[in-house]
Amino acid sequence: MRNMTSSGSSRGIAAIVGVGPKLGRSIARKFAHEGYTVAILARDLGRLSRFADEIAREEKAQVFAIRIDCSDSRSVREAFEGVLSLGFVEVLVYNAYYPQTSNWNPTCFQDIRIDSFEKSLAVSTVGAFHCAQQVLPGMVERGRGTILFTGCSASLNGIAGYSELCCGKFALRALSQCLAREFQPQGVHVAHVIIDGVVGPPRGPRPSQRAAVDEQGSGGDGTLDPDALAQTYWYLHLQDRTAWTQEIDLRSSNPRFS
Amino acid sequence: MRNMTSSGSSRGIAAIVGVGPKLGRSIARKFAHEGYTVAILARDLGRLSRFADEIAREEKAQVFAIRIDCSDSRSVREAFEGVLSLGFVEVLVYNAYYPQTSNWNPTCFQDIRIDSFEKSLAVSTVGAFHCAQQVLPGMVERGRGTILFTGCSASLNGIAGYSELCCGKFALRALSQCLAREFQPQGVHVAHVIIDGVVGPPRGPRPSQRAAVDEQGSGGDGTLDPDALAQTYWYLHLQDRTAWTQEIDLRSSNPRFS
Amino acid sequence: MRNMTSSGSSRGIAAIVGVGPKLGRSIARKFAHEGYTVAILARDLGRLSRFADEIAREEKAQVFAIRIDCSDSRSVREAFEGVLSLGFVEVLVYNAYYPQTSNWNPTCFQDIRIDSFEKSLAVSTVGAFHCAQQVLPGMVERGRGTILFTGCSASLNGIAGYSELCCGKFALRALSQCLAREFQPQGVHVAHVIIDGVVGPPRGPRPSQRAAVDEQGSGGDGTLDPDALAQTYWYLHLQDRTAWTQEIDLRSSNPRFS
Amino acid sequence: MRNMTSSGSSRGIAAIVGVGPKLGRSIARKFAHEGYTVAILARDLGRLSRFADEIAREEKAQVFAIRIDCSDSRSVREAFEGVLSLGFVEVLVYNAYYPQTSNWNPTCFQDIRIDSFEKSLAVSTVGAFHCAQQVLPGMVERGRGTILFTGCSASLNGIAGYSELCCGKFALRALSQCLAREFQPQGVHVAHVIIDGVVGPPRGPRPSQRAAVDEQGSGGDGTLDPDALAQTYWYLHLQDRTAWTQEIDLRSSNPRFS
Repeated sequence: MRNMTSSGSSRGIAAIVGVGPKLGRSIARKFAHEGYTVAILARDLGRLSRFADEIAREEKAQVFAIRIDCSDSRSVREAFEGVLSLGFVEVLVYNAYYPQTSNWNPTCFQDIRIDSFEKSLAVSTVGAFHCAQQVLPGMVERGRGTILFTGCSASLNGIAGYSELCCGKFALRALSQCLAREFQPQGVHVAHVIIDGVVGPPRGPRPSQRAAVDEQGSGGDGTLDPDALAQTYWYLHLQDRTAWTQEIDLRSSNPRFS
Repeated sequence: MRNMTSSGSSRGIAAIVGVGPKLGRSIARKFAHEGYTVAILARDLGRLSRFADEIAREEKAQVFAIRIDCSDSRSVREAFEGVLSLGFVEVLVYNAYYPQTSNWNPTCFQDIRIDSFEKSLAVSTVGAFHCAQQVLPGMVERGRGTILFTGCSASLNGIAGYSELCCGKFALRALSQCLAREFQPQGVHVAHVIIDGVVGPPRGPRPSQRAAVDEQGSGGDGTLDPDALAQTYWYLHLQDRTAWTQEIDLRSSNPRFS
Repeated sequence: MRNMTSSGSSRGIAAIVGVGPKLGRSIARKFAHEGYTVAILARDLGRLSRFADEIAREEKAQVFAIRIDCSDSRSVREAFEGVLSLGFVEVLVYNAYYPQTSNWNPTCFQDIRIDSFEKSLAVSTVGAFHCAQQVLPGMVERGRGTILFTGCSASLNGIAGYSELCCGKFALRALSQCLAREFQPQGVHVAHVIIDGVVGPPRGPRPSQRAAVDEQGSGGDGTLDPDALAQTYWYLHLQDRTAWTQEIDLRSSNPRFS
Repeated sequence: MRNMTSSGSSRGIAAIVGVGPKLGRSIARKFAHEGYTVAILARDLGRLSRFADEIAREEKAQVFAIRIDCSDSRSVREAFEGVLSLGFVEVLVYNAYYPQTSNWNPTCFQDIRIDSFEKSLAVSTVGAFHCAQQVLPGMVERGRGTILFTGCSASLNGIAGYSELCCGKFALRALSQCLAREFQPQGVHVAHVIIDGVVGPPRGPRPSQRAAVDEQGSGGDGTLDPDALAQTYWYLHLQDRTAWTQEIDLRSSNPRFS
């Protein structure tokens, strides 16, 4: 484990890209809780600012909300100018993807517009590539840093009606493997987290505060608890460099869809 | 096996996208040899026209050379207007990719320009998506057709210094799986061919004419013979629909790089 | 392609281990049809002899029925003494597995007897290991030969209630990969065929004789046609050594279970 | 996270099968350190007893050394009678495998004796099956428990000269997947840990005590630190059941063999 008693001044920034009300928010809260200054980035700055205020207040941490459109390389560069001005980015988490439809129904292949397909790759893959390029020089210079990419079941198997999602997520997995092989010897931990299932709302209270009775609970409705997922993101960041994980899956004990 | 005695008039067109001096040319030649009218597509129309003339003369077949820039959706549409004017496209083979460097050396991640990365996805993935959209309506209408995508070892594992290639090829594999699941029940065979190794020049004479002595040969220099690869593309097209392959790998018995 | 006009005298034996009324019989028939002397091996010698007579009569070929119990190493050795006395074993196909229940229902893990689990590994894995050891010396000596192992969807993913089948089939896949890497440079082609679905009865007439109308058929009831599967086993045997397949999947265009 | 403040009386036993001087010992020490009563099992009772004494003394924990021969089903049953007499087995870690040679050199396939191959499957796979059967009834009854299987790179890819290891490890991975799918809905967490690389001696002091300077260390000689590996085994045990891992890999940042 890395020594977590080091003073705040040496602690870097955790940048979380793609922050909505579930996973991204829980990860941001976890890193804030552990003492990191956190930058959260997404397209909807209004919602993002509310999350930043809420986390800052609850965790007594510094949280910055920065607008980003991951499909637009100028927006990525500008957003990271802001992030990098806060200090050394020690952690990058990349969750962003382009929702192919509002309702998650499959789309007939012939009905997918080419610009929608391109947009999906731009957000899932090109955006991840570009964000990684912003933070890697600092990580390599210091010989440490963690980059965590969020995948899903569509990262591993093609699904009829979901080519936009699958192509972007397969490519993101490729990126994570390429970066791990290139940068792990330079001290940068790169991992790919496959979340297999539907993320639900946080169950609260925080996992660490749950009563033992919950141990024997049913696993509830089969959704994944974003606070529990965030624990694993944090754990990956803590791993010792003699035993780093490159890929890990996460699913409910009682999956809603098997 | 499909009945191969049907008259030429009912036989469709085989469109081969991404035709250079090795694999694409051998596949085009094989389909021409078996009686198909062939359309070959690539960016360099001069070279492509010489291949078309050569194959037409040697195989006594109709071969059309059509310029395409797979990274440009307008060019894809225009090229396929030409292909579709020749008749029903029964076979689509997609080989195109964007060579990340002229010499195949790895590139430091920080040195990859974002427009080069985008271009690689545009050729490997978006181009394949778009070409498939051009031919699928006709295949679905007739309840038959074959789409073959060419992958490589970078389709399965990330490689340091090759994120452009890997991301595009992982995404292409995703596309092939999505299309197989959506369209195989409608009679369209979609397969992904993983060529693991360096394709060399054809060994000639044609595989079917080689002497038995070759059976005991050493497998030569460890490169893959494009004429032998083309046999497997052809075989995949022939497979009966009660026993279709979705993914197959091909490598030399004596690989140069293990 | 290997030269198939060579005289019968130089042609070796095809040994098919695990021959029931579907896949094994179709593979045996295909190799007999192509001019091979065929040895078919299974536990039920009565049924096996009827298959041998039928194939010999229909294909005008030499077909030998030899009893084998793949879970018993003495039986394997004795059976292969018989096979090897017929001549050089050029092709080995290994289909045998131990049916975990008579009705293919899942078994609660706690209800699986350890001797049943051991038996399943003995048939799926140890039997394959042992049969390969019988034929490899001859293949290496001649610098040619083909070994084909039959897998299924349980070769790739664990399934609740099927640990006997899955453990044996995962291990068989490992064996095929180990042998491919060791023996392909010595001229022996080793491939693993993943049959994903339920094999039904042959559709007949033989695939090569089917009318073109069948091309547009529905794919029927979603079962795999064993004669169509056997074509791919034959094709793998024909592949040129500059472009060998190590793993291939086969499924119906219209799978009964997706 | 599970509530770790519960009294010792409700805490079960952690049984570690396959304990040598590296990984097994570090895992045993970690669970002892966290307050578990630990049973360590291996063939060499003398060495095992020294480990038990050492851990008991250093961690002020109860540690029991129990002899087991995982290839012998009677020995497995007897050993677990002993383990189960200590209390509820809440955690099972299975590390045992059969070293195919004393020096880890590859073995020519033809030189592998069939009884050695059988023994390897007996230890890697049948032993794991049998140990799991001993502890699952108690876990299912209580609706909780953790089973962790140790794999390696040979769990994922066949390697020339290592068929004994690969077949056993592929099959173990199958077992872990089958058990996860059957028992996770009943509250038992089953995970497969792929250790990709050579495990070296512990680096000490314990990871939690290392100085910050180590953060920027080189990752040393490319071996994996067993104490760091043990942290991840412990973390898997702690995961909340709404976000369980089934498979995770671990390797050095600076692998000795890539």
